[in-house]
Amino acid sequence: MTDSARKSAILLIHCRDKPGIVVTITDFIHSNGGNIIYLDQHVDIERGIFFMRIEWDLQNFVIQRSKIAEYFETLVGSRYQMIFQLHFSDTKLRMAIFVSKMPHCFYDLLARYESGELNVEIPVIISNHTDLQHAAERLGIEFHYLPITRENKKQQEQKQKELLKSHNIDFIVLARYMQVLSDDFVNDYPQRIINIHHSFLPAFPGSRPYHSAYERGVKIIGATSHYVTAELDAGPIIEQDVVQVSHKDSVEDMVRIGRDLEKIVLARAVRHHVHHDLLVYENRTVVFE
Amino acid sequence: MTDSARKSAILLIHCRDKPGIVVTITDFIHSNGGNIIYLDQHVDIERGIFFMRIEWDLQNFVIQRSKIAEYFETLVGSRYQMIFQLHFSDTKLRMAIFVSKMPHCFYDLLARYESGELNVEIPVIISNHTDLQHAAERLGIEFHYLPITRENKKQQEQKQKELLKSHNIDFIVLARYMQVLSDDFVNDYPQRIINIHHSFLPAFPGSRPYHSAYERGVKIIGATSHYVTAELDAGPIIEQDVVQVSHKDSVEDMVRIGRDLEKIVLARAVRHHVHHDLLVYENRTVVFE
Amino acid sequence: MTDSARKSAILLIHCRDKPGIVVTITDFIHSNGGNIIYLDQHVDIERGIFFMRIEWDLQNFVIQRSKIAEYFETLVGSRYQMIFQLHFSDTKLRMAIFVSKMPHCFYDLLARYESGELNVEIPVIISNHTDLQHAAERLGIEFHYLPITRENKKQQEQKQKELLKSHNIDFIVLARYMQVLSDDFVNDYPQRIINIHHSFLPAFPGSRPYHSAYERGVKIIGATSHYVTAELDAGPIIEQDVVQVSHKDSVEDMVRIGRDLEKIVLARAVRHHVHHDLLVYENRTVVFE
Amino acid sequence: MTDSARKSAILLIHCRDKPGIVVTITDFIHSNGGNIIYLDQHVDIERGIFFMRIEWDLQNFVIQRSKIAEYFETLVGSRYQMIFQLHFSDTKLRMAIFVSKMPHCFYDLLARYESGELNVEIPVIISNHTDLQHAAERLGIEFHYLPITRENKKQQEQKQKELLKSHNIDFIVLARYMQVLSDDFVNDYPQRIINIHHSFLPAFPGSRPYHSAYERGVKIIGATSHYVTAELDAGPIIEQDVVQVSHKDSVEDMVRIGRDLEKIVLARAVRHHVHHDLLVYENRTVVFE
Repeated sequence: MTDSARKSAILLIHCRDKPGIVVTITDFIHSNGGNIIYLDQHVDIERGIFFMRIEWDLQNFVIQRSKIAEYFETLVGSRYQMIFQLHFSDTKLRMAIFVSKMPHCFYDLLARYESGELNVEIPVIISNHTDLQHAAERLGIEFHYLPITRENKKQQEQKQKELLKSHNIDFIVLARYMQVLSDDFVNDYPQRIINIHHSFLPAFPGSRPYHSAYERGVKIIGATSHYVTAELDAGPIIEQDVVQVSHKDSVEDMVRIGRDLEKIVLARAVRHHVHHDLLVYENRTVVFE
Repeated sequence: MTDSARKSAILLIHCRDKPGIVVTITDFIHSNGGNIIYLDQHVDIERGIFFMRIEWDLQNFVIQRSKIAEYFETLVGSRYQMIFQLHFSDTKLRMAIFVSKMPHCFYDLLARYESGELNVEIPVIISNHTDLQHAAERLGIEFHYLPITRENKKQQEQKQKELLKSHNIDFIVLARYMQVLSDDFVNDYPQRIINIHHSFLPAFPGSRPYHSAYERGVKIIGATSHYVTAELDAGPIIEQDVVQVSHKDSVEDMVRIGRDLEKIVLARAVRHHVHHDLLVYENRTVVFE
Repeated sequence: MTDSARKSAILLIHCRDKPGIVVTITDFIHSNGGNIIYLDQHVDIERGIFFMRIEWDLQNFVIQRSKIAEYFETLVGSRYQMIFQLHFSDTKLRMAIFVSKMPHCFYDLLARYESGELNVEIPVIISNHTDLQHAAERLGIEFHYLPITRENKKQQEQKQKELLKSHNIDFIVLARYMQVLSDDFVNDYPQRIINIHHSFLPAFPGSRPYHSAYERGVKIIGATSHYVTAELDAGPIIEQDVVQVSHKDSVEDMVRIGRDLEKIVLARAVRHHVHHDLLVYENRTVVFE
Repeated sequence: MTDSARKSAILLIHCRDKPGIVVTITDFIHSNGGNIIYLDQHVDIERGIFFMRIEWDLQNFVIQRSKIAEYFETLVGSRYQMIFQLHFSDTKLRMAIFVSKMPHCFYDLLARYESGELNVEIPVIISNHTDLQHAAERLGIEFHYLPITRENKKQQEQKQKELLKSHNIDFIVLARYMQVLSDDFVNDYPQRIINIHHSFLPAFPGSRPYHSAYERGVKIIGATSHYVTAELDAGPIIEQDVVQVSHKDSVEDMVRIGRDLEKIVLARAVRHHVHHDLLVYENRTVVFE
């Protein structure tokens, strides 16, 4: 994909496939002074659905930013009943991290953040434990300790929501956060909560996948990053990767081996989200890369 | 691992772990003139089980072949309640193939057989279709057409068993054989029927895994070879491998991509079986390599 | 990617990147009644080069097949100094296989051919040995035995060329053909000779890569399919894949493990070529998938 | 492999292969009250060399720690001209990190250290830049800024050596340290300096592997961790891993994708070293796992 200093607009589009869609879209951009720098288009033949990611340089584009969505909807989108998102490459997303005690994904995200690899703002971190408070604080990130019990879950989620709102959070990353979010909470952030599950979903959903993998005697273990939906571990999959194990590996070995997989797979998913490389259709992601 | 011209004996052993097992076994071989050419030992700490594959050159071994099992049981095995198998590297296993219409695994096995890569005898091929009869016959392998219906299944399995018996078959490979074997049949060949399943088990058991994988939107598909047990797709896993797919891949694409995976994963499993590289303990395989 | 019964045209294009290229091309197709079924476009930012693969349904296309290239060149290509290839999905390519003694890639290609997986015609097979003659002949494919010595190489290559010409061969696959083709020969078939090299190029070029890999103590071995150019093992890479090895693997083990890799990697490259999924620019392939 | 609270001794052994070695070693341990908890033995048939890693519980072992090496040499090692190393599982190795400006490997090692995943002491970090000083200091690790020029290299290496000596450093990790160490320095730490090279060696040695990979048009990039020897990028390989790239990936993309690979591959190598899982023979590593 591409990069950096350039100011560009990104459209993620899907609609029923019909003749002439590509030319209509490219014509809209071209005839208004936009130079296309990325175009990936794909038709799901089985479902008859058209998908596109298109990005263009805004330098000589004659429609002002705040009007692009309206113009596109009027001139193009409405004609094809398109569902589209418009993003700008120079707008930094604001990301919250939810974490419990396990540090590997958390440290990895913070290292990417600190080194400038992860192009986001992280104004707030929320945890049901205090173990990782120091790591948040030494980077000057607000840390909120909100322990969860069956009794206080509703109230604590309310506080979480307020924190997210007050910090203008765009999306949430669950970095091995060991609490199930309520449906209510999840529904407030559709396709904006990214989780890492420590198995190759749909194998081994639930809370002890490495134990299950060991019991079943699989020769490969995996990790899956996905958007969170109301149904546990069943949201649209963003990234998956795997690594070989053998009969020599105990559950403890799998946990250790899996850590590296989890952090890499989660980081890739966050990157796709941040770069607006993906859209969701019928619980499946379309990842442009 | 090892090889070829050399005449060697192979022991696959498991028992409860206790001090002194290794030295007792190696001493049995060594003091009787055997030179150890392969030794792999592993303790499953969680279960407290000892596993070993040991292979030694028979050239100067003083116990004659036909007596080795008895002597080992008396002098070593009974002391530790070992469960062991004894094999000889110069004995060719006799393998039957069951196949339906899909040729990729079948052709691949035959090519390995013809080129000498697969060190077995294949005296008989059984199919519920005639599509692949020509391929069997041009290699001079007996081919039996035994179509299966709900009504005749029992009788046909009886005929299959007679064929297997009359050809002294050691093990059976289901090369995408599209029939479920009866429990009766399966129980006659414990750890001697190898199947290839076209998914990364335990994800997507059953008959249409690529469709399910497509529906679930996974980013990786897999194949699994396993010993067949009475419970469908739940036998001990021998080999697994995976390959990346993307949103661009239709079910048809997955079928195509999966074919190469299936044939490689099945061939690896057959090789392990033929080389006596694996044993089964509590529905998990221990693969020495 | 796409498929089968549909009659479609495929354009593979590259040129200097300029604003408006995409819209010009899509407009040419759309305004003449073509329905775009595949479009993948990519700009190499570092070199400023535009690449595209575009495929459209010919059903309602108003320009007749034999005129499409001319019209496209006049109306679009010449404007941007495009270099383009035009292919039709219903034209079967004619492929020759060159092979020596090693059967694995050869058998694999024939199995794909026989099962209809490989959408080509194979009218002729050429070998410097007779070992594999029987396999060619039982499929009814002409087999020519042309042994090569230093002395007769020029003449034998002359005979090869005549055979290729008389069979209207479109491209050649070297299925572990253990002879170096002369520059002359290679230059006659630019980007039309596919080789499989048994290493992860550019590591270990030359004739004994597994020995070199063993000596160097690498932990991964690979295979590389590439177009043949005058410089040995330096042509544009089409596909690569790798597999893990360990200190336990001897050269012989690597040879065995590598076989499966070689056949899969070669088959993928042949498929890309046959499906017109790739173009070459500055000794690198652009593979659309 | 094994673990943790248990106090055990580890022997890494190699010598010319002869009959009876395994039994002699296991007998030495067994007859002195040691319980073998790990044994991996391997014969390099081509070279006729025997390799072993053996680990035993010290609880009831009758030879005291400080005498084990002497007794083993006298009773076993000298008989077979063995080269062996003896380690104890409860002795923490002392590791120094050399780093320049690139933070990814460095942050990753520190995160593993901080979370207790990496079982070492890190008393000192040395850098030719000050960029990462803050990260060292917030974990309370001594950081020394020793910039290198052609003129001062000798003196600065002298200072480095003094620091290493005064901190009793066992081994050094070059976490993308962008300076070539002098032969003198390297020879002082045989098999005790671990480097991460950002390519699949032996492809693309030297300083700009991602540029070379891009130019060559490879479809897979890799990373290699190895012990440093006098010959640049030619030391014994400990770990390698790879990831797929495509024509869409620029050099900058490869740099980004490669970062994750580098940190994982380096961490695995460090882990093997720390766990005494590897030995070196003829510039190749034998990795027991």
